[in-house]
Amino acid sequence: MELLKKKILEEGKAVGTDVVKVDMFLNHQIDVDLLCEIGKEFRRIFDSNNITKILTIEASGIGIACIAAQFFSVPVVFAKKGTNKNVGDNIYKADVYSFTKGVTTTIGISKDYINENDNILIIDDFMANGKAVHGLINIINQAGARIEGIGIVIEKGFQPGGDALRSLGYRVESLAVIKSIDNGNVVFG
Amino acid sequence: MELLKKKILEEGKAVGTDVVKVDMFLNHQIDVDLLCEIGKEFRRIFDSNNITKILTIEASGIGIACIAAQFFSVPVVFAKKGTNKNVGDNIYKADVYSFTKGVTTTIGISKDYINENDNILIIDDFMANGKAVHGLINIINQAGARIEGIGIVIEKGFQPGGDALRSLGYRVESLAVIKSIDNGNVVFG
Repeated sequence: MELLKKKILEEGKAVGTDVVKVDMFLNHQIDVDLLCEIGKEFRRIFDSNNITKILTIEASGIGIACIAAQFFSVPVVFAKKGTNKNVGDNIYKADVYSFTKGVTTTIGISKDYINENDNILIIDDFMANGKAVHGLINIINQAGARIEGIGIVIEKGFQPGGDALRSLGYRVESLAVIKSIDNGNVVFG
Repeated sequence: MELLKKKILEEGKAVGTDVVKVDMFLNHQIDVDLLCEIGKEFRRIFDSNNITKILTIEASGIGIACIAAQFFSVPVVFAKKGTNKNVGDNIYKADVYSFTKGVTTTIGISKDYINENDNILIIDDFMANGKAVHGLINIINQAGARIEGIGIVIEKGFQPGGDALRSLGYRVESLAVIKSIDNGNVVFG
């Protein structure tokens, strides 16, 4: 998606060989006009998949999922991190290891909001090692729903998450794939 | 907002005298069509305020803020909970006590994304004791920005948060104010 790549090059901040900060438009301050174009693009890509629900994970995925959901006319469900007494025990759970934080978090989705009739589109802001998406897949499998695809805004192509999921047969569509980061320069794949 | 009140009565689950669960359409599964109507209503209410930015707090506020921001054509900034090494030290912080969880959390917003030229609309899903909003106000004051108003989807009118903020001179507009919850019945104010 050229508009997104342009935005990453012009406003993102590449650090070292591994980090590109996009918190000026994607995951702290949010450029809602850009999100709208991202949502349209996900709709175009997954137009024929009869999506019934968009799943994401708090917090950065929620805004993207909600804006995209407008173009699919379906609800969003977001996985919550940690235990939450307001959700109760009626919950599908999965453990997600974060390489960034070095900790394992339990994510959960109420059993009321996903079932075997759902065709799910997973949406998230970043894909690196793919552990968050694996957690969502685990939950979707527990519910017996179908995984129609995985829509990622920015994939770090030099990390294994995306290709590992593709090799398992999942359809992973990333709007920008970063091939490498080198001294402040982002190279797309 | 009649559509919202109808939704709360028809789909929400009132528990005891204090809790109304709306996670089937507002803060776990998200009815994006409803959010769209909520966004339009916030625009109608704050139409003359020359809003430059919508502030909220992760996680439940983000979807509402993003959908509403489309009608204001402004960016969203969401406060992050806890420390996050990706944000760095260039950050406004405030402590927020949660009565639900019994813990104090530090919230933060990067100094890059809010400044003295901003006219801020705060948006959140729930108002009870108002501690989260007080945290955002603290941060907005540190930045020297103006607080144009506070838009809340559901206010628990039997708890002190909303009126305490109104008595301080803030414009608090809640789309549904719950006067009481009694054995599974929600009464609006």
